[in-house]
Amino acid sequence: MRVVFKKLVTVEEALKALNKHVKPHHLGIEEVKITEAHGRVLGEDVIARINLPPFSRAIVDGYAVRAVDTSFASEVNPVRLKVIGRLHAGEDSSLEIKEKECIEIDTGALIPKDADAVVRVEDTSIDGDYVIIDNSVGKGSGLASLGSDVYHGQFVISKGEELTAEKIGVLAGLGYDKVKVFSKPKVAIFSTGNELIEPGLELKASKIYDVNQYSIGALVQKSGCTPIYLGIKKDNLEEIREAVIEGLKLADAIIMSGSTSAGVSDLAYKVFDGLGSPGLIVHGIAAKPGKPTIIAAINDKPVFGLPGFPVSALIIYGLIVDPFLRAMSGKKLEEKKKIGAILAIRYLSERGRREYLPVFLKNSKKGLMAIPILGGSGAIASLSSADGILEIPENLELIEKDERIDIELFSDAKISDIVAVGDFSPISQVILSELRKKAIKVREEFRGLEHGLAWMRDEIADLLVSCTPKSEKAPISKISPKIKKIRSYTMDMVWAFYGDGISSGSTFILPKIGSGLRNYAEDKIKSMVKDFDLIETWSYDSAIDLISKRRNMIALLPLCIAVKHEFNFIDAFPAKVSYFIHEDFLATEIGKKLKKIMKSRETAQALSSMLGISMK
Amino acid sequence: MRVVFKKLVTVEEALKALNKHVKPHHLGIEEVKITEAHGRVLGEDVIARINLPPFSRAIVDGYAVRAVDTSFASEVNPVRLKVIGRLHAGEDSSLEIKEKECIEIDTGALIPKDADAVVRVEDTSIDGDYVIIDNSVGKGSGLASLGSDVYHGQFVISKGEELTAEKIGVLAGLGYDKVKVFSKPKVAIFSTGNELIEPGLELKASKIYDVNQYSIGALVQKSGCTPIYLGIKKDNLEEIREAVIEGLKLADAIIMSGSTSAGVSDLAYKVFDGLGSPGLIVHGIAAKPGKPTIIAAINDKPVFGLPGFPVSALIIYGLIVDPFLRAMSGKKLEEKKKIGAILAIRYLSERGRREYLPVFLKNSKKGLMAIPILGGSGAIASLSSADGILEIPENLELIEKDERIDIELFSDAKISDIVAVGDFSPISQVILSELRKKAIKVREEFRGLEHGLAWMRDEIADLLVSCTPKSEKAPISKISPKIKKIRSYTMDMVWAFYGDGISSGSTFILPKIGSGLRNYAEDKIKSMVKDFDLIETWSYDSAIDLISKRRNMIALLPLCIAVKHEFNFIDAFPAKVSYFIHEDFLATEIGKKLKKIMKSRETAQALSSMLGISMK
Repeated sequence: MRVVFKKLVTVEEALKALNKHVKPHHLGIEEVKITEAHGRVLGEDVIARINLPPFSRAIVDGYAVRAVDTSFASEVNPVRLKVIGRLHAGEDSSLEIKEKECIEIDTGALIPKDADAVVRVEDTSIDGDYVIIDNSVGKGSGLASLGSDVYHGQFVISKGEELTAEKIGVLAGLGYDKVKVFSKPKVAIFSTGNELIEPGLELKASKIYDVNQYSIGALVQKSGCTPIYLGIKKDNLEEIREAVIEGLKLADAIIMSGSTSAGVSDLAYKVFDGLGSPGLIVHGIAAKPGKPTIIAAINDKPVFGLPGFPVSALIIYGLIVDPFLRAMSGKKLEEKKKIGAILAIRYLSERGRREYLPVFLKNSKKGLMAIPILGGSGAIASLSSADGILEIPENLELIEKDERIDIELFSDAKISDIVAVGDFSPISQVILSELRKKAIKVREEFRGLEHGLAWMRDEIADLLVSCTPKSEKAPISKISPKIKKIRSYTMDMVWAFYGDGISSGSTFILPKIGSGLRNYAEDKIKSMVKDFDLIETWSYDSAIDLISKRRNMIALLPLCIAVKHEFNFIDAFPAKVSYFIHEDFLATEIGKKLKKIMKSRETAQALSSMLGISMK
Repeated sequence: MRVVFKKLVTVEEALKALNKHVKPHHLGIEEVKITEAHGRVLGEDVIARINLPPFSRAIVDGYAVRAVDTSFASEVNPVRLKVIGRLHAGEDSSLEIKEKECIEIDTGALIPKDADAVVRVEDTSIDGDYVIIDNSVGKGSGLASLGSDVYHGQFVISKGEELTAEKIGVLAGLGYDKVKVFSKPKVAIFSTGNELIEPGLELKASKIYDVNQYSIGALVQKSGCTPIYLGIKKDNLEEIREAVIEGLKLADAIIMSGSTSAGVSDLAYKVFDGLGSPGLIVHGIAAKPGKPTIIAAINDKPVFGLPGFPVSALIIYGLIVDPFLRAMSGKKLEEKKKIGAILAIRYLSERGRREYLPVFLKNSKKGLMAIPILGGSGAIASLSSADGILEIPENLELIEKDERIDIELFSDAKISDIVAVGDFSPISQVILSELRKKAIKVREEFRGLEHGLAWMRDEIADLLVSCTPKSEKAPISKISPKIKKIRSYTMDMVWAFYGDGISSGSTFILPKIGSGLRNYAEDKIKSMVKDFDLIETWSYDSAIDLISKRRNMIALLPLCIAVKHEFNFIDAFPAKVSYFIHEDFLATEIGKKLKKIMKSRETAQALSSMLGISMK
């Protein structure tokens, strides 16, 4: 039977339910060396056990005096004091001064008995055994008195504070070589899913590499805890249950991901029965993404079941797991930074579920622009390339294009200078790499010409790459008369293969529908063979991979690539790679740099050496 | 001969000179497991070597269909498709569908040949071998197509980026179990000074614990480098020179501190002669604190000689060393956060030197208030308790009281709710600890009654503690009629000692000048003995320490403390500990909480059990 989520709770309700059943508590205390204490959380109040400084000491180089002896000193009427000795830093001394006497003293040295000020060496001159002072000094001048930084018994650092460099400095100054800190909570992590394999192993058909264990493991470290990786578990009750039991033994909290939706293979919600009380407490959260989240509490240990989709898992981690783990570890919550922007497109949201929408940011003439990343919650790369999150409340269904919104900024946000779209081409890789060398932040979204035209029209993209048959005109003028071609290159296309060549029944690998070459190429194939299969790929690398492995496959590739990989090939047709930008953008600083780089000798050389392509 | 600094340079000039002689460069590349890569800096561009997802996969549980077969489906006119099989996630399959067929499919499973959409299970019903669909779906619906997250050949993460959890997720998804990162620069650290000893050892007269090695070591870790602690070196040319030579052998950069001022013991600037070129490049910086900073470059390795005073060392580290080391390690600079505040006092700055003034922050009725911490550059605890830094430009000499200023906020800033001043008293420790338990942020500055009165007058402090002879009136009304007493306690004072008692020639330990009991107690002593010595301490702990060690010392202590420590004692006089607050503050939420806590049974119990003190 398929279970459907019935009682979705809000993020706040989920946290409340969790805190009701499991009080986040600090675990034990451990002692670490102060050289290893940076970033740890102090496990005891520190009350100063000595004075700092522990004795009154000179804070300038000069002469320790009785201040009263310098009274009324002036340039006209200087004071002469007899130098009766010398005190170095670190030297204990029984020297004491009497009226009209002084002692030469170094910064850091113990102030001798009965001296109550130090005259800076710069304000004195020497005459034999005497020092001449032409300015009076007050009591306490030129010295730091015992306990003036910290007095013995002073409350210095609270239990629960994170140890910064400054606090470690204080601890050292007070004589601590070790310090008591909270032990880091241990968090067991595992992923479930029959399709998952460990990174580093060979990828097999229908399998994907596990993402969640590693991204969650990194977040767990950031939350001040130690991850314990339990590996990948099959999608069955016994294996997941065993993993939970193992996690409860080894760790203070468990995070699993996958197998939490309401589908046929989803058994996780049954796992907790009989393991301890109260068991399952949350099953489903009114958030998008993140609905199939479960939370259990087993004998005071929390178990988080995050969605299998990497983006969902990370967003729910941030909303629910992170605050809870930080309450355990003592790490402060990260401050959330907001930034205003305008939304690049009209966006419809689902009523009744709070939505967390990853966006990327770019500078535009309208100001900072936020562009939703619509890769879906399986798309970890989309999240990793996002600059922030747009939170859309439950009761909001529509945000208009150009509406002002607040984005929660990621710490590694990098606002794009140029968004490049259109057709994939090896030429672009060379050009974009030249741009990146000049510290220009380039975001590439080569999702085909049609997608690129739409983004150019909506002024999301700045640089459009079209790759079209040479005999056709790129359909740019349709979009805007202000979009100008700045450069184009000829690129000969070939039918490349590893095996015997084209025959009826061959499988052809073409760019995706919507790419500039797609329709023309498909027509060409039809003119060659009657019966064929088609595979679509986004990039030539993907095509290369396929024809390297199977003999009956034919890929449409640039000549230069076919030659480089030593494939067999026959000529297909000449294509034209053109670069278009909006004339407003061309007038900006970045636009000018872009044009310069595209016309530069370095770029031409890089192109000809890497690709053997000549400019048109 | 004493060297006087002649060519002070600005911070910017120092950085420029340094960058001219030593180009900050990344060191080698090393491979780490992705489980250990969090926070490391990527050492290579990552170009996707597979598609992600590597095959088109279902993103919902449901039925894989040919979208065309669902055309025109509606509730009135549903479509019936024959279920010809079942596909689980991770299962490879040669199943393919024909017209009007479908395959039951799990989230994550491979989309079978010729299917181009997945209908969600929630939108279907079952009738024997058939599934009934009453809504048409578009091509691509319910699935993530091959390469839709990342296409093979896509530029994914730039060399030089810090690895976040999301980026580690992408690397895992692309099959990386290890990743190339920049090796962390190694930084050798040592302190110089004959007065320094290692924390953990016994403190001897005229010695202080080394602070700088440890606080700098923590900062070096924060800058993305690995500290190598070389220990404490004596203040002589040979020892420092040997340490530099050792540092050059072991590390990529050296940070020493101390021995860099122009005083007699200051030899560091001579250390570099003959070690390599160009040697010393900066000797003195026009900053306060931080003037005695030196920078050398020896065969492409930087050597930073920071001032010995901990506060100076840390401030110069932040201005000069941190940006340089981060350029080497690849760690991003920390963002500096500014916050507006009003300055609590009139402040005079030195013309011609940029000043960096640590401040603490408190909420006041005038808004956020910044109070300079005037502990001096030796005072590490002052810096550690600071909330931020006020940067005063070279050409600014005066900032008026209540003038609006910008503070550069520390990441661990905690704005005080209550500033407590006045006389030290064991009673206060009990009361403040009750406040802290209630999450009220208390800053204590018990620097005597005179200091406390001044801070109350200037409205910096909120809570004043006076400890005066019972027979005298605390001089509060002088300050403001609006300052009200909220509580007072009687505390019997005694002359406590470990040895034989009071006699002529004894040394008496009294609170500092400016404390409420000081003058009265001194008069009392004069009435008892003719000939005596005086030692001043800020706190009773300090006095206890002294009389525990030496038999001829007599301390003025509260009776309860003398009893607790089993000292001998004779009665001195009764004192009165009183708590005053401003009536405006009493009206605030925090003021009310404070009053409640002071009058509570818990506080009374805590006082009587810890101190044996009864309320008046």
